[in-house]
Amino acid sequence: MSHLYIESDANPRVKRWKKLATELRAVRREGAALLEGIHLLQTVAEHPEVRVHAVMLCSGAVTEEAVDLAETVSAERKAPAFLLADRIYSQISPVENGVGVMCEIEIPVPASEDDWAWEDALYLDGVQDAGNVGTMIRTAAASGVKAVIAGPGTAGFWTPRVLRAAMGAHFSVHLIEGMNLRKFREAYRGRLLAADARGGSNLFEAPDYTSAGPVCWMMGAEGPGLSADALAVSDERYWIPISPGVESLNVGAAAAVCLFDSSRRRALRKGTSPAAE
Amino acid sequence: MSHLYIESDANPRVKRWKKLATELRAVRREGAALLEGIHLLQTVAEHPEVRVHAVMLCSGAVTEEAVDLAETVSAERKAPAFLLADRIYSQISPVENGVGVMCEIEIPVPASEDDWAWEDALYLDGVQDAGNVGTMIRTAAASGVKAVIAGPGTAGFWTPRVLRAAMGAHFSVHLIEGMNLRKFREAYRGRLLAADARGGSNLFEAPDYTSAGPVCWMMGAEGPGLSADALAVSDERYWIPISPGVESLNVGAAAAVCLFDSSRRRALRKGTSPAAE
Repeated sequence: MSHLYIESDANPRVKRWKKLATELRAVRREGAALLEGIHLLQTVAEHPEVRVHAVMLCSGAVTEEAVDLAETVSAERKAPAFLLADRIYSQISPVENGVGVMCEIEIPVPASEDDWAWEDALYLDGVQDAGNVGTMIRTAAASGVKAVIAGPGTAGFWTPRVLRAAMGAHFSVHLIEGMNLRKFREAYRGRLLAADARGGSNLFEAPDYTSAGPVCWMMGAEGPGLSADALAVSDERYWIPISPGVESLNVGAAAAVCLFDSSRRRALRKGTSPAAE
Repeated sequence: MSHLYIESDANPRVKRWKKLATELRAVRREGAALLEGIHLLQTVAEHPEVRVHAVMLCSGAVTEEAVDLAETVSAERKAPAFLLADRIYSQISPVENGVGVMCEIEIPVPASEDDWAWEDALYLDGVQDAGNVGTMIRTAAASGVKAVIAGPGTAGFWTPRVLRAAMGAHFSVHLIEGMNLRKFREAYRGRLLAADARGGSNLFEAPDYTSAGPVCWMMGAEGPGLSADALAVSDERYWIPISPGVESLNVGAAAAVCLFDSSRRRALRKGTSPAAE
């Protein structure tokens, strides 16, 4: 594989990548994202619909596996490959102690409402923590949910920490960002389920809430929980029974409990596990 | 409240706190841990059995709430209070952009086996990621589990990132560290349940596994999962049904699904939610 070698900070591509690594505005303006590491590149390799702008290798500390993967992705997607000086690579790498391989992709065009309005979904109401947002995208995809929608104030789906925590699940669900509650309520055809520790029904004692069509779990930020506006548009409200003396669950853990409660109920009703559907 | 003002790096307490903030060995040798932030200090305030060695405020950027809390903890536990120069505080603060209040506590003596061997528990088999370990301690406590036991290679329970992610749950469960699988298998009186994506029974279709006494979920590291030794000592093995195309769950999310599956089954059998027990 022939690489273009880059060792200058002044290179316009380097400037662009630095911005994509650190500025949400740049990610949105350019419609591009940086993916680092073997696992994310493998996921890109498995999704031929993803457009790759560039593949970048670090001149030091690159494993054979990383080089092979970079070559494959570069060749199959006709994307230019770059070899970056250590110093340059570490400036743009979103991950500390990475393996030295990265790519820039075009963020997929969000699906139209028709593609997700009748599907099970997850709505994130101002969840700022990137690790939790990424974990929830991954959990949602694993639970069989078809779309994850973010309201304003939620961490950018295509930022490095969210991408890393989601471990490639970005390419298994529809992702829609910046959709406020009013627009979402108008667009979504199923029932909105508020996960809220302050009231509603006990999740485990509630009758089957999955039997009347698609549902969308709504999760709020750590601490404040769902906003008053989110509670106002919700159709039903559930709390997870937790031990006295413990205040609350991490939002990612709470989402896992809720999403897999739905998944379990559906599977029981259909007499099949989600994996077999 | 009278504080001792510290502005020198050479102060022996500062040296000690720096080590507690960054070195697992120091935490274990000293039997002491640093807790930062309003929430962790409030938890300490609610647990009079916790011994407090010192309370530390940052000379800049301290809220009234933080000062009040520091005064309360210092007075009630007869612990000396220190005002740290900004520069010193940020050197030892385990948290970026903290609120400027911290305390040093004595790590509680681990419970004897009699206190947890007959209780529901969680065993962590080489889980290195501190955020996941802290989240799992929090989830375990919330699900009604009474003990969390770590095998070798698991992140130190009393290190800053684990403490932060657990949000005070350290004081709601028995915590035992450095117990290898053989010793744990000998000590624990319930059944060991392996959470393992590679085989066993579908968690949601399995008969009630909680009806015959205490159970301990065993969780392995991201990536490799449970070790062969952990699988060998387990009594039963369960997988969480996930959608095709998604490789796995985050270990914290998987633990939430397993722990609350047990909690739900127990509650259904007893006709009561865990919160009401």
